[in-house]
Amino acid sequence: MEFTIRAATPEDCKDISRMIMELAIYEKMPDQVKISHKELEQDGFSENPFFRCLIAEVPEEHKNKEGHTKVGYALYFYTYSTWKGRTVYLEDLYVMPEFRGKGIGKALISKVAQVCKEQQCVRLQLAVLDWNTPSLDFYLAKGAQDLTASEGWHFIRFDGEALDKLAQEAPKNEQL
Amino acid sequence: MEFTIRAATPEDCKDISRMIMELAIYEKMPDQVKISHKELEQDGFSENPFFRCLIAEVPEEHKNKEGHTKVGYALYFYTYSTWKGRTVYLEDLYVMPEFRGKGIGKALISKVAQVCKEQQCVRLQLAVLDWNTPSLDFYLAKGAQDLTASEGWHFIRFDGEALDKLAQEAPKNEQL
Repeated sequence: MEFTIRAATPEDCKDISRMIMELAIYEKMPDQVKISHKELEQDGFSENPFFRCLIAEVPEEHKNKEGHTKVGYALYFYTYSTWKGRTVYLEDLYVMPEFRGKGIGKALISKVAQVCKEQQCVRLQLAVLDWNTPSLDFYLAKGAQDLTASEGWHFIRFDGEALDKLAQEAPKNEQL
Repeated sequence: MEFTIRAATPEDCKDISRMIMELAIYEKMPDQVKISHKELEQDGFSENPFFRCLIAEVPEEHKNKEGHTKVGYALYFYTYSTWKGRTVYLEDLYVMPEFRGKGIGKALISKVAQVCKEQQCVRLQLAVLDWNTPSLDFYLAKGAQDLTASEGWHFIRFDGEALDKLAQEAPKNEQL
């Protein structure tokens, strides 16, 4: 199937928001999605965007039964390794179920890898749930390493009350 | 012991670079450190910095036997959650061994949490090695969640030849 990969524009945010929810449902955490297309427009398309996004689009004749032609996305941002320098983090990679198996996911991640190289970034990183074996196998088959399995890295998060409490305990005597 | 926490300046990069190597030795991967203070100056102190850094400093009378007064650092950057919006990632938190147990690490991470709240970021995230129980216990005692243990998130990385190969396979027909 013919498809194109292109940089997202603010006009894509409603479709990105729709697909973010579809991905959260797949990841079994739909109640976790708190942001809308308006926050995406503001956070991703200002002068210093918090993220970048690629869109996979199919021609009108291949639209699905709901009429969607924007069928996948890759959302990423620049991060930093104190050992290696500039890196890219792929927050989301998603292709709608009825458009899988056509090379769209592969094309999206390859484009992100290309951007990564062009920007002199030496790593492309992402996170995957351990039960999501189709995705894990896809990444490993393409040569990725599972650093949690091989080196023992664990994800740690402060949010909600734990983050509030930590922030309140900051030394008050210094200006930053 | 008296100490101050302040935003790093380009003049701190030699000390940050020294402490990055000390931390890598503690993490048993010193041969992984490929960047120098020059890259840190360039990447962290340009118009659109790739990272931010806080420095912990002790007064001259408490310098260690090598003469160091810059004794810890917290290096972080802004990231993005498609579920929650703006977030902060703490890449490194380090206090020199002879200055531990004085509340310096706690003060550094609390300041990062404060910055996080000030910038309307709803999460502070980081990674820790599973054998590094002193650090893991420190974060969990402060209310952090271990998302690898609780939800099964694994770190995945493409670098070196795997990243090159992925980038080469990107569709050639589109402009980004």
